[in-house]
Amino acid sequence: MNSKSAKFITIEGGEGVGKSTNMAFICEWLDNHNISYIATREPGGTPLAEEIRALLVAPRAERVGEDTELLLMFAARAQHLSEVILPALRRGQWVLCDRFTDATYAYQGAGRGIDKGKIAQLENLVQGELRPDLTLLLDISVEQGLARARERGEPDRFEQEALVFFNAVRDCYLQRARQEPHRYRLIDASLPLIDVQNSMAMHLMTFLGSDV
Amino acid sequence: MNSKSAKFITIEGGEGVGKSTNMAFICEWLDNHNISYIATREPGGTPLAEEIRALLVAPRAERVGEDTELLLMFAARAQHLSEVILPALRRGQWVLCDRFTDATYAYQGAGRGIDKGKIAQLENLVQGELRPDLTLLLDISVEQGLARARERGEPDRFEQEALVFFNAVRDCYLQRARQEPHRYRLIDASLPLIDVQNSMAMHLMTFLGSDV
Repeated sequence: MNSKSAKFITIEGGEGVGKSTNMAFICEWLDNHNISYIATREPGGTPLAEEIRALLVAPRAERVGEDTELLLMFAARAQHLSEVILPALRRGQWVLCDRFTDATYAYQGAGRGIDKGKIAQLENLVQGELRPDLTLLLDISVEQGLARARERGEPDRFEQEALVFFNAVRDCYLQRARQEPHRYRLIDASLPLIDVQNSMAMHLMTFLGSDV
Repeated sequence: MNSKSAKFITIEGGEGVGKSTNMAFICEWLDNHNISYIATREPGGTPLAEEIRALLVAPRAERVGEDTELLLMFAARAQHLSEVILPALRRGQWVLCDRFTDATYAYQGAGRGIDKGKIAQLENLVQGELRPDLTLLLDISVEQGLARARERGEPDRFEQEALVFFNAVRDCYLQRARQEPHRYRLIDASLPLIDVQNSMAMHLMTFLGSDV
């Protein structure tokens, strides 16, 4: 890694793994280490990308085609990259992003059964060479995750999916973590929050230490 | 051509060429020839695709990235294809569509300077082998076309572009018509309406005659 360059960190995981709480923890950790950063999320991250996100998550009578969903995801991502992520990295700010393309492989690929080759083609078209430098994967059983997510209220279009969908999503994340151990850090999100956060802090410290 | 199969006809052209009026004329012509058809438009053609269209055409403070615009166009197209165009063709209905992928090559490719290779990649990803059977290109000088379009009222985000943009769009359309003479029919839209419609009727009759 280039010790001077800003880093691109993503946080991934299924429903109810506690991404929001843990995003806040990472922000605090970056603040404490005097690292200039922005925190953002996908799909979304710019006004237009958030409008695209709203189209994606709204429950609707019309069937949403698989290619449609995939292209909308990458449209939001393209906007987020060109207007937010790439400018921040160029300014030297780290970027902390709640979900990125790994989620597309998990949700649209494994979940909806969209050909992985199509996703890879769009990943290259939109991102070129850019990939996250570090991905923190919060993992929990599907049953535990959905039980937590339901406490938040009405399910959106994704949360209405069946268990088989969420199991496929989780399996895909775990498989990707095994295939790319240099980038992924697996965190057991079923542990008490303090243990989850200690684990994240340890991974972040190791990542930072490998770089400076 | 397979004489049994329903046909996919597109109508293309820049601003103010009179697509709406001439779409109505073609519908009447198809009715008079007892051809079962649907008339639709791009970007749009389904509730979700129309919502995507609204995102595309709305003037906005945020810069819209080139890839974003391209992916939104193809997201709308994927939805339109899977939910409207392909089911109609499978039912044996002809499809008459106001703009299709030729417009993406003209507006996003030539107009915005997006790499044609990217457009071709998305065209193959979303459409597979599907291409229009017949494309009627209404052609008029940029100055005449914009003067007509302005009579319609406030310009949308595309109509706010500069002359150089619209000249590139027109040149691209004309070039594509030359490259694919078997599919394209060029119609001089600066002529009086009756002559434009006679020309369209002649091309439609020849197309129909070549098929039955």
